[in-house]
Amino acid sequence: MSYFSHLECGYCDEIYEKNKIWNLCTKCGKPLLAHYDIDSAKSDFEKESLKDREETLWRYKEMLPVQDEKFRLSLGEGFTPLIKTERLSKNIGFENLFIKEEGVNPTNSFKARGLCMAISRAYELGVKEVSIPSAGNAAGAMSAYASLAGMKSFVFMPKDVPQPFISECKALGAEVTLIDGLITDCGKIAKEGVEKFGRFDVSTLKEPYRIEGKKTMGYEVAEQMNWELPDVIIYPTGGGTGLIGMWKAFDEMEKLGWINSKRPRMVTVQSTGCAPMVRAFNENTEFAEPWQNAKTVADGLRVPAAVGDFLILRALRESNGTAVQVTDEELMEGANLIGRTEGIFVSPEGGASLSAFKKLREQNWIIEGEKVILFNTGSGHKYMHLWK
Amino acid sequence: MSYFSHLECGYCDEIYEKNKIWNLCTKCGKPLLAHYDIDSAKSDFEKESLKDREETLWRYKEMLPVQDEKFRLSLGEGFTPLIKTERLSKNIGFENLFIKEEGVNPTNSFKARGLCMAISRAYELGVKEVSIPSAGNAAGAMSAYASLAGMKSFVFMPKDVPQPFISECKALGAEVTLIDGLITDCGKIAKEGVEKFGRFDVSTLKEPYRIEGKKTMGYEVAEQMNWELPDVIIYPTGGGTGLIGMWKAFDEMEKLGWINSKRPRMVTVQSTGCAPMVRAFNENTEFAEPWQNAKTVADGLRVPAAVGDFLILRALRESNGTAVQVTDEELMEGANLIGRTEGIFVSPEGGASLSAFKKLREQNWIIEGEKVILFNTGSGHKYMHLWK
Repeated sequence: MSYFSHLECGYCDEIYEKNKIWNLCTKCGKPLLAHYDIDSAKSDFEKESLKDREETLWRYKEMLPVQDEKFRLSLGEGFTPLIKTERLSKNIGFENLFIKEEGVNPTNSFKARGLCMAISRAYELGVKEVSIPSAGNAAGAMSAYASLAGMKSFVFMPKDVPQPFISECKALGAEVTLIDGLITDCGKIAKEGVEKFGRFDVSTLKEPYRIEGKKTMGYEVAEQMNWELPDVIIYPTGGGTGLIGMWKAFDEMEKLGWINSKRPRMVTVQSTGCAPMVRAFNENTEFAEPWQNAKTVADGLRVPAAVGDFLILRALRESNGTAVQVTDEELMEGANLIGRTEGIFVSPEGGASLSAFKKLREQNWIIEGEKVILFNTGSGHKYMHLWK
Repeated sequence: MSYFSHLECGYCDEIYEKNKIWNLCTKCGKPLLAHYDIDSAKSDFEKESLKDREETLWRYKEMLPVQDEKFRLSLGEGFTPLIKTERLSKNIGFENLFIKEEGVNPTNSFKARGLCMAISRAYELGVKEVSIPSAGNAAGAMSAYASLAGMKSFVFMPKDVPQPFISECKALGAEVTLIDGLITDCGKIAKEGVEKFGRFDVSTLKEPYRIEGKKTMGYEVAEQMNWELPDVIIYPTGGGTGLIGMWKAFDEMEKLGWINSKRPRMVTVQSTGCAPMVRAFNENTEFAEPWQNAKTVADGLRVPAAVGDFLILRALRESNGTAVQVTDEELMEGANLIGRTEGIFVSPEGGASLSAFKKLREQNWIIEGEKVILFNTGSGHKYMHLWK
């Protein structure tokens, strides 16, 4: 069973009833977060019970929002490998370097986790049509789960999006509209459909459940490291839902008595061509100003304004973490180095994690003997144009 | 430990010592197959021991050829989902239809299994450089495992291969040579390097271990169906290594006492643009004549001459199976139907499995109540050009 109890605004703490369809907080416009009856869960859901469970994110179902088993859609998402690097480790002279390999998820990216959860929950709440403005992996993941649920899905993409992202949505049965404009223009047109046809908008953090899917990365990291969290987690940050989600998961697991109070230092990495979180972190502001003229080959990092900016910054600060920017050249070098040493075809975002690690190691911000996890958020297979 | 005992020619039964590097049978030029000391394995390797093992193909390590653990390369290959279709099943009105989803393997295809094994074993035998003529997924998989092993890898591809296949090899550190010619021309040029520089050729069935990796699909199907094999397995057949491998696995498992003598009817599906096995099956010959002017969008099916042709035909006949051809249009329809009902972005080869099923169901060759597995051998992500 699920111990999901209610929703609460992540900013103003307003409470919302769980069995209705919600997007953002109707009071302050910020994201809603799922809360659980952890006192009850604690006596019933023991981490020892996990070892016989299926290797998908649904192994943590007690701490996930879907109530009824029949709505738990699955394509095998989650419980991705945590790889201890060997040849990469030797190459850069640092011992405890791990890669969390999200590229093997369905539709080749970590977006499968969030959309699996959002669509499953929408399915449970009776939604028939879903919609998303997207420039990348999220649209493909939405299309996959929507088809599995028998929902109609509508994707709005800038017409200059790389072909692979468009093809994937089409092959998965979505209706794709290409817009001559930016992702913000796509958002506006998607919104018309939402208002006119009652479609449900599954943009990240604009509905409360994608983050619940993403938080399972935090549960997995803990389980795969035998319930002792690493010293540092480096996370390529666009919308930042995964980072916020993991931070939430650590808190839940401590309350469940699964881990102690030790936390990793959380690191955001962005591209110099779009680094709103790095700027806000350095300027010590609560929110991040939107980035003008965002430009980077790493599509997942081209997010000029993140709805959950304050939650990302909060996690970085509370964890004594930091925010790093790397150039597109550096992140591609990182991706190539992982490819030729570890045999993993990572996305440019995954390459950014390694480049950020290198910078932080040079500055001695990361020291010898620490355990560090680099996130590769997707496979390079949809970024073929970068390896011509 | 591994119970691998020796190699034997699949045609003339000549025996070869296991700890040397071999390609084809030096006597008759046919493929060598790995044999195991099953009598010893039987008392030691019980299927009940599997449940606590890692979810990769290495869970069957006792029946795999790599001797020493430190040479078992892994990127998380194998133990892929066996999905019981629901919306697809309803759509076509047939109940027990399963998809073995190989697209979630590393490098997005079932080729990871074979190359994982071939490169691991080559690594164990001291090989430093590997080489392959390939028009598709095999090259990417080889590049990945070669990098993981610290080997140099050389790929020879026709220059008209879709860009994704080339990019993947490059990102994974392989040296890619594009040839103005057919795959056979690539083979010739690759051979020069093999002779001149002592590179090891990992073309399928020209070395004995890719099939050992592929056979794990047979072990998995049995384990995932609770040790009762299905009635029919439909398998998109290019080189056919997986089909031969599964057939071998079933035999091994029966000797191990894991399954009874019931076997699925094995079905080969090919494209009308390249159907040498279908023709040979229908003409009841022992070998297949090479197909002239092979042409199909399903790159994995564009194999005019399979080294293991007689082994494929033998398995089809012994199992009371059959061979079916479908048009490119039909296989694309199949792929799209899977996409929009089950949310899986399958390769055109995966689509072919569904089209073949439909034909066989119409002919009542498959009857209501039977259990049928369709193989999706890879994801559609490297075939984006087909969904423009």
